[in-house]
Amino acid sequence: MAMNVSLQAVHPIEAPPPLTNNTPPPLLMNDFEGMPGTCGGLLLRFCQFVFAVISLVVMGTTSDFPSVTAFRYLVAAVSLQSLWSILLAAVDIYALLVKRSLRNPRVVSFFTFGDGITSTLTFAAACASAGITVLIGNDLNLCDINHCTKFESATAMAFMSWFLVIPSFLLNFWSLASKSSP
Amino acid sequence: MAMNVSLQAVHPIEAPPPLTNNTPPPLLMNDFEGMPGTCGGLLLRFCQFVFAVISLVVMGTTSDFPSVTAFRYLVAAVSLQSLWSILLAAVDIYALLVKRSLRNPRVVSFFTFGDGITSTLTFAAACASAGITVLIGNDLNLCDINHCTKFESATAMAFMSWFLVIPSFLLNFWSLASKSSP
Repeated sequence: MAMNVSLQAVHPIEAPPPLTNNTPPPLLMNDFEGMPGTCGGLLLRFCQFVFAVISLVVMGTTSDFPSVTAFRYLVAAVSLQSLWSILLAAVDIYALLVKRSLRNPRVVSFFTFGDGITSTLTFAAACASAGITVLIGNDLNLCDINHCTKFESATAMAFMSWFLVIPSFLLNFWSLASKSSP
Repeated sequence: MAMNVSLQAVHPIEAPPPLTNNTPPPLLMNDFEGMPGTCGGLLLRFCQFVFAVISLVVMGTTSDFPSVTAFRYLVAAVSLQSLWSILLAAVDIYALLVKRSLRNPRVVSFFTFGDGITSTLTFAAACASAGITVLIGNDLNLCDINHCTKFESATAMAFMSWFLVIPSFLLNFWSLASKSSP
């Protein structure tokens, strides 16, 4: 006791430890739901995967999709999208299980780049298929000899999948930009 | 001389002014070419406008574009894109002339939102037109009774316009995210 009092008398101001404890580390500020390594992010990835796979299966069960380039492209794009989403979902599950944060700028920029590429490809394929589906159904009225309903369903599922990749992409890009700011 | 020496003796440490001069204001750090209010940004806007107008004119000069929904949609989308780009180009010219910075977060978020909407619409229209152009040209081989070259040119110009909106969108989004970071 006497020892403590004499030490405090020697060093009256002991400021540094409280200061470093009060300032929050800025890198941990922007860690909200939907980003990789969170439950929201995993849910987004899983839904992307499910919609992409439904689109793939529905388009694959039509007999005449290989005759139209845009439908072949849709099959390729949603295949890539489903592979990318299930891969990222696995990474998210790993991060959640070992309680590891995926806040590394290099990892986040890789995820952002991949999300940007796959979402652009999926959206382009969905738009091309939608254009052709509308051409067949509304402009030419050829739905009685074509699988219009299946084409429309596959297109809609591809749009849903794209719609769910956009939050992932924007959140990753946001976290990347706010991390590299001064 | 004697006065100065006595003042320095009274206040031996005069740190605050150099400190505030040395720390740069963080809001002015992220002001690089291509953002609104810079020459690069104006050039981007102008090129977006030119490509969108070329696409509009080329598609408008084909006689049968109203018979296909996707081509009508392309005309609407590139019209909107050209209006948006020329409006933002005018804002950029104003900002350059009065030497005013467009770093206001509300303004930047409005530009980001508008860029996101118009680029998505232009890209969707370009993809739908590309799907139909490829269907007509490659899958059905009907180029001899259709204006395939004009359709292809209009689609390519719309893609070029979209390609030039993306840097504007990403730069605005980046500046928005890095500004609102802690």
